[in-house]
Amino acid sequence: MSKFIRLRRGLLAAALSVPFAAGVAAAGKPVSAWSAVDPMVGTGGDGHTFPGATVPFGMIQLSPDTAMPDFKHAYKWAAGYQYGDSSILGFSHTHFSGSGHSDLGDVLVMPIAGDVRLDPGTPDQPGSGYRSRFDHKSEKAEAGYYAVTLADYGIRAELTAGTRVGWHRYAFPKGKPAHVLMDLRPSIYDYDGKVLWASLRVRADGTVTGGRSTRGWAPGRQLFFAMRFNQPMTSRMLYNREKDIVYHGFGGPGNRAEDRDGQTGRALEGVFDFGPLDKPLIVKVAVSSVSEDNAIANLDKDGAGFDFDARRAEARGAWEKALATVDVDAPAKTRETFYTALYHAMIAPGLSMDVNGEYRGPDNQVHTAKGFDFYSTWSLWDVFRAQQPLMTLLQPAKSNDFVSSLIASQQSSPFGILPVWAYQGMETWCMIGYHAVPVIADAYMKGIRGYDAKAALDAMVASASYGPYGGLDDYMKLGYVPIDRQPEAASKTVEYAYDDWSLAQMARAMGQNDVADTFTKRAGNWRNSFDTKTGFVRARKSDGAFREPFDPGQAGYGSDFTEGNAYQYSWFVPQDIAGLVTALGGEDNFVKKLDEVFDAKVDPKAFAHVEDITGLIGWYAHGNEPSHHMAYLYDFAGQPWKTQERLKTVMDTQYTPTPTGLVGNDDLGQMSAWYVFTAMGFYPVTPASNEYVIGRPFVNKVTLNLPGGKRFTVSAEHLDASHPYVGQVTLNGKPLDRTYVRHEEIVAGGELKFTMQAQPNKTWGTAPSARPSSMSKVAP
Amino acid sequence: MSKFIRLRRGLLAAALSVPFAAGVAAAGKPVSAWSAVDPMVGTGGDGHTFPGATVPFGMIQLSPDTAMPDFKHAYKWAAGYQYGDSSILGFSHTHFSGSGHSDLGDVLVMPIAGDVRLDPGTPDQPGSGYRSRFDHKSEKAEAGYYAVTLADYGIRAELTAGTRVGWHRYAFPKGKPAHVLMDLRPSIYDYDGKVLWASLRVRADGTVTGGRSTRGWAPGRQLFFAMRFNQPMTSRMLYNREKDIVYHGFGGPGNRAEDRDGQTGRALEGVFDFGPLDKPLIVKVAVSSVSEDNAIANLDKDGAGFDFDARRAEARGAWEKALATVDVDAPAKTRETFYTALYHAMIAPGLSMDVNGEYRGPDNQVHTAKGFDFYSTWSLWDVFRAQQPLMTLLQPAKSNDFVSSLIASQQSSPFGILPVWAYQGMETWCMIGYHAVPVIADAYMKGIRGYDAKAALDAMVASASYGPYGGLDDYMKLGYVPIDRQPEAASKTVEYAYDDWSLAQMARAMGQNDVADTFTKRAGNWRNSFDTKTGFVRARKSDGAFREPFDPGQAGYGSDFTEGNAYQYSWFVPQDIAGLVTALGGEDNFVKKLDEVFDAKVDPKAFAHVEDITGLIGWYAHGNEPSHHMAYLYDFAGQPWKTQERLKTVMDTQYTPTPTGLVGNDDLGQMSAWYVFTAMGFYPVTPASNEYVIGRPFVNKVTLNLPGGKRFTVSAEHLDASHPYVGQVTLNGKPLDRTYVRHEEIVAGGELKFTMQAQPNKTWGTAPSARPSSMSKVAP
Repeated sequence: MSKFIRLRRGLLAAALSVPFAAGVAAAGKPVSAWSAVDPMVGTGGDGHTFPGATVPFGMIQLSPDTAMPDFKHAYKWAAGYQYGDSSILGFSHTHFSGSGHSDLGDVLVMPIAGDVRLDPGTPDQPGSGYRSRFDHKSEKAEAGYYAVTLADYGIRAELTAGTRVGWHRYAFPKGKPAHVLMDLRPSIYDYDGKVLWASLRVRADGTVTGGRSTRGWAPGRQLFFAMRFNQPMTSRMLYNREKDIVYHGFGGPGNRAEDRDGQTGRALEGVFDFGPLDKPLIVKVAVSSVSEDNAIANLDKDGAGFDFDARRAEARGAWEKALATVDVDAPAKTRETFYTALYHAMIAPGLSMDVNGEYRGPDNQVHTAKGFDFYSTWSLWDVFRAQQPLMTLLQPAKSNDFVSSLIASQQSSPFGILPVWAYQGMETWCMIGYHAVPVIADAYMKGIRGYDAKAALDAMVASASYGPYGGLDDYMKLGYVPIDRQPEAASKTVEYAYDDWSLAQMARAMGQNDVADTFTKRAGNWRNSFDTKTGFVRARKSDGAFREPFDPGQAGYGSDFTEGNAYQYSWFVPQDIAGLVTALGGEDNFVKKLDEVFDAKVDPKAFAHVEDITGLIGWYAHGNEPSHHMAYLYDFAGQPWKTQERLKTVMDTQYTPTPTGLVGNDDLGQMSAWYVFTAMGFYPVTPASNEYVIGRPFVNKVTLNLPGGKRFTVSAEHLDASHPYVGQVTLNGKPLDRTYVRHEEIVAGGELKFTMQAQPNKTWGTAPSARPSSMSKVAP
Repeated sequence: MSKFIRLRRGLLAAALSVPFAAGVAAAGKPVSAWSAVDPMVGTGGDGHTFPGATVPFGMIQLSPDTAMPDFKHAYKWAAGYQYGDSSILGFSHTHFSGSGHSDLGDVLVMPIAGDVRLDPGTPDQPGSGYRSRFDHKSEKAEAGYYAVTLADYGIRAELTAGTRVGWHRYAFPKGKPAHVLMDLRPSIYDYDGKVLWASLRVRADGTVTGGRSTRGWAPGRQLFFAMRFNQPMTSRMLYNREKDIVYHGFGGPGNRAEDRDGQTGRALEGVFDFGPLDKPLIVKVAVSSVSEDNAIANLDKDGAGFDFDARRAEARGAWEKALATVDVDAPAKTRETFYTALYHAMIAPGLSMDVNGEYRGPDNQVHTAKGFDFYSTWSLWDVFRAQQPLMTLLQPAKSNDFVSSLIASQQSSPFGILPVWAYQGMETWCMIGYHAVPVIADAYMKGIRGYDAKAALDAMVASASYGPYGGLDDYMKLGYVPIDRQPEAASKTVEYAYDDWSLAQMARAMGQNDVADTFTKRAGNWRNSFDTKTGFVRARKSDGAFREPFDPGQAGYGSDFTEGNAYQYSWFVPQDIAGLVTALGGEDNFVKKLDEVFDAKVDPKAFAHVEDITGLIGWYAHGNEPSHHMAYLYDFAGQPWKTQERLKTVMDTQYTPTPTGLVGNDDLGQMSAWYVFTAMGFYPVTPASNEYVIGRPFVNKVTLNLPGGKRFTVSAEHLDASHPYVGQVTLNGKPLDRTYVRHEEIVAGGELKFTMQAQPNKTWGTAPSARPSSMSKVAP
């Protein structure tokens, strides 16, 4: 490290220490946005968030794992950590934030003082292995930093993260031999045979490198790492812990149960010894999906030196910059919930590209990103709704990279289609739809154009036309997905139809009218799955008849729907809500039916057999995405005060700034993005329409600090618990009677001002002309 | 392909057709060197050669596999093909030539006419699966070409090879639907769980790509491929044939039992359909150890067009050029044996580098060769003896690449040591010693210097000093490998000592006297394993005592030796044969003891339990390498006529130009190189000494066409069965009394002339001054 760089780092740390000091709430002044973030939110219950250290959209999520149980019990530990647990297995470098299904937990590292036990131990008997007990009181979680005391060893462990490097600082008890154990066996959502192959070696310069390929959610995924220490290793041993090592080969180094320099196999573990230490051990680990060499290059470039505090300050700085896009004035608890939500909304997609631009694509081959950064971790069924639209507003430069990454993935897909649920470049085929299409269309329609639009449209059309995927061949032939040939057919039909509409929007804007016409027509396919007799979306068979018997409350495996039922999915026509109103017999019936959903008396155990359907308000399930736009639908029927009422119920009951404060999986930021939008007073019911449907603000004032120096402020006068209704609305000082604002209006800067009142205003936003324009986007 | 290239190809094919026509023996004129090669030699019995198509030192060995049985029965099928079998499973693209242990058999392709059965069938019931019966009469094997008729389908299958591309031409019976099946499951030396992961896809342009990683001899080895056809595929289906496909993920393309575009899994099979064809189907397949993209690039660059005949002519041309380094005048059968041996001596090491210079190293990471071509397939325990020395003579440019490849491997080895038994860049740890050291030293001492000599010496010293390898830590401490800590300790001790000597030679020549002194001293370590009481090399324990009981005939697992016994290994002191003579009580005792070895009455079943010890003449086992220099040792005791006698016995009994004509594994050309040297009249008993010990010629005349236009001729007057003894010898017209020639004398060009006679000449080569100089290389 050059003197110059060291100097700059010193200055940076000094500069960052100012907001840090300011962050400690002084004289009633609100704490900084960064200080308001609590990464512990969602780490209990079904939130599935992790408490560890990461930077916005980073490659590393360095976090404690309390359990990596077998797949039958994995759901609860989808992020590796559960707040209710009392012991820590180690710190691994990759985690999903809020996923339902799971994987990752790569490169598990555990500091050990004294004797080393190679077995991991169990949560029930934490003293039986290398795991250690801990107390929440010893934990400190900040955006970009996590610390805990490992009680069994008396080790203070601190973690922070750079873009591609995880940083550990371990203070060992005096006089006790210090060790770092690495276990390449465990994995989140673990099962026998999951690790296909692994390697681990200590290079001549002391750098530890290795990697593994796993038969996980993304089968055949490879992850490599490079690790360095700030103090010399005195000895080490690398173990192949497979009970029966049979290589049908010969003995040699690297082919035995123990070796000091290198091992390959399926069950590798390494112990690195440092003897008693006088100062904390700093461990830095870079990862790469491509190769050990790339991991080393990532470590060289992104992880110079051993200044943990400077790295911690940098991580904080990165978050402060990201969070500074929104200034919120609200009570402390609300600010905490808000900024924690904003934090959770900016973890994924994560960078999945090495410093040399190389990344692994869905073909499991190495590619080079040219002119963009490659991002992955795409929970598209979730994030197309609000998380990605939030990024088009707050992080349009990143949106360009996101779109370019989706196009690049399509171009190296064995199937020639866009990602469905991808991470580290690879595909899991999880969930349904081709929702990369609305993500791209939404960005394009909002004027985000820093990618090859022609290639994007080609990729979208290819994805929407790939017959073997999820019944698309039948969908293209019959106009719906038949339930006798495809599970969960009704949800597929309505989601494809919306995706088709979004594709048509972009094609039309590009002047590709033939494509636009084709997909506009397909956008009407939701009607083919809508049963006018029962008034529900439901599944048809290939002979055209609806499948019988039909129970609108039925959900889960074997039902017509993906993680939902007819009460929830029947509202998924964001591209043609006017058509849905008509189909349901007009506005009054529409509202009546919507009320019935929210007000239904539902057995709380109705969805006990279906993971992820939680946060019930009647049939409305806030814990899962199909419900997310529903409260806003009253606006489309001229009764916006009901939207306001329903939103208040959701906001009052579904979010608290506590470990169990998320009622369902955060789903890579979708639950959180819903909160951010809703708190600000509007929500993208129909991504790619450029309209945000107005609910009501839940904060006194919020300012979006937009790129180019524009500022858009939403303020709410008289906002308090006794004034839950919108009275008047002005946009830039002029009365606004419609119940939506356009993207263009926001990014131009300005002020949206609400005056709240105690009683419903039954005149504001009720005129037919006031309704969001997706009322009439698709001809009946 | 440009017009120009096409034109050049046409001319090349035309040019090659001349020698081809000439090759058909006309009016008693000997057939061309190329025509004399019979790739069928060694494909039966224990030869373990393959009959298929390859080019000199190529990356592709495209050959029929008759069986890929489980590991318990794999020895016999180490090359995939056994001459005694009657059915063919398919044609795979990678094979070892003559190895004992095995692997490879990658990218198995089988043409099918009519109905497709997905199961491979068994040799016992060839009609039960996709395998087909065949008749040897329908086979045609040439250097670079193989053809057979698949009787069950009526398909004429022809194979040829380029450097990185295998070419297939399949003539299907008229009217029957043509298919090509690819099976990524089987492997040579197969066992459950060997395939760790595989992928298979059809790209938009019809290119089929994929690859697999296997837990084989080189654990974690990856091999990728790209395949194209000269006619359009009409349909295809890709199968995941694992009985229980559980990915803990979701259904989607690529995650099912069947798909048309892509699959990943452990048991993949693809069927590509072409319908009835009017002309032969040409299939070309490139491989890469690095990636599918590299396989495609290899196919693009090395495999343009679909002109099978031109490719066949090119392969033939490559062999004609390689074989033209030696002109032999001898009876037809001898010429056939000679050129087949020369052919087998130039198959390995094989290129293991893609067209962009990338290759995979022993760390399983991708590296780029700069300034050299990366070769692998290193059966070093075998080939350091004669095959590599033969290459320094005939292919010195390749030797440069070989040495550079060894250095590069050391530099990316997790253990920092040179290859032991490596292929496709990766290590197996098979056999003993660090015999890359004498390979490099031999090349260096012969003036082959196109590599970084400093890096080479560093690599050699590192390899000779790496404690955890094969008891080297004890060897360095005690001066021998102790049998109570390391199996086969006696053979390790004497082989290390020779390797050390070779290292010292090179160090001395480089002026590194400290290194030279250290290793010259270590070269004397053979004495620490030599028991003066019994007169045998045998194993000591760490307490210094020889292990008891001792049976000099004992071999195999648990014995003191690797694939040998004390009768064989006691002669392995090529660096100090003078010392050995003294240790054995002088020349008379030395000769007496040597005679006892050759003349012993040994139960033919003595080595039935040890693979690879075959070709017994007394205790002398020509089928395995420790014996290879023994017949030449009489020269060192002043009785060269006994060397001549013993060589005649070996040559008369151990080589015939028939499928069972190799008495033991060809061992990547070592058995064959022994034949080539011995037939020419001399042999490199002590590689790195630059001396070839004279035996006697077995051909009338042989001319080495050396680089730079030099020619060295060995002629033998009166050579016939009744004149088996050397009478007189002249070198460049002057009498030569010594029993060796130096490398410098050969490469300078000239003539070595033997006059053979009926009776032993007991004066020629008997003077003390006549003996090879390794008499006194190591001080006692």
